[in-house]
Amino acid sequence: MSEALFPTAPDEAALERGAVLAPRFGADGLICAIAQHHRTGEVLMVAWMSPQALRLTLDTGEAHYFSRSRGELWRKGETSGQVQRVVEVRVDCDQDAVLLKVDPQGDGGACHVGFRSCFYRVVEDGALREDP
Amino acid sequence: MSEALFPTAPDEAALERGAVLAPRFGADGLICAIAQHHRTGEVLMVAWMSPQALRLTLDTGEAHYFSRSRGELWRKGETSGQVQRVVEVRVDCDQDAVLLKVDPQGDGGACHVGFRSCFYRVVEDGALREDP
Repeated sequence: MSEALFPTAPDEAALERGAVLAPRFGADGLICAIAQHHRTGEVLMVAWMSPQALRLTLDTGEAHYFSRSRGELWRKGETSGQVQRVVEVRVDCDQDAVLLKVDPQGDGGACHVGFRSCFYRVVEDGALREDP
Repeated sequence: MSEALFPTAPDEAALERGAVLAPRFGADGLICAIAQHHRTGEVLMVAWMSPQALRLTLDTGEAHYFSRSRGELWRKGETSGQVQRVVEVRVDCDQDAVLLKVDPQGDGGACHVGFRSCFYRVVEDGALREDP
């Protein structure tokens, strides 16, 4: 499936310095994706993308993910209205992670619990404190 | 192994709103970790943590990861000098991702290729352009 939608880098030099987008999906067929607010820089969420999800994200300019729990492709905001307009897409050095700079629509949130970011808790002295 | 170092949340409410750090490691025993520059907000890298790596990160205040390629625990900066002093640790709603706000030491970089951030390439018209 991933072979069909994206090429595989022939060597490390191409992977790390090449101009060809050759994302490396894991054994489960997914790649890690981080959504960061394009203006504030706040990290909003971490999710997973199948080749189709990444393809749709690039083609539509709206973030698509693959839900591991539901086992299905997922257009962010489809039910919540929290559509993520994609301002920029980056890949990391070994192309096994994707960074999206997004402009969150709807109420501006990203988290199903109700917070703006999924990272609303900080670890303090080994315990968690909500600090959205 | 993870049972020994961290508890498991008894239910969704505890997982999402509780004060107990109960990280959910994946089938491979690892959890996704994002390192973000504590001051600039730049996303520097994505890596993986074993329970021991997370424990050491919390206990020492320096980022530890688990190298999937080398199959071993790894103290960031041990050879490069790019030690990451941890300013803040956050977890996401379902506790399967960790966000580190770090203060990079050494030359201030994070990426083995030589850039400050691993996300030095942007996707433009389907191709990659270096834009560190």
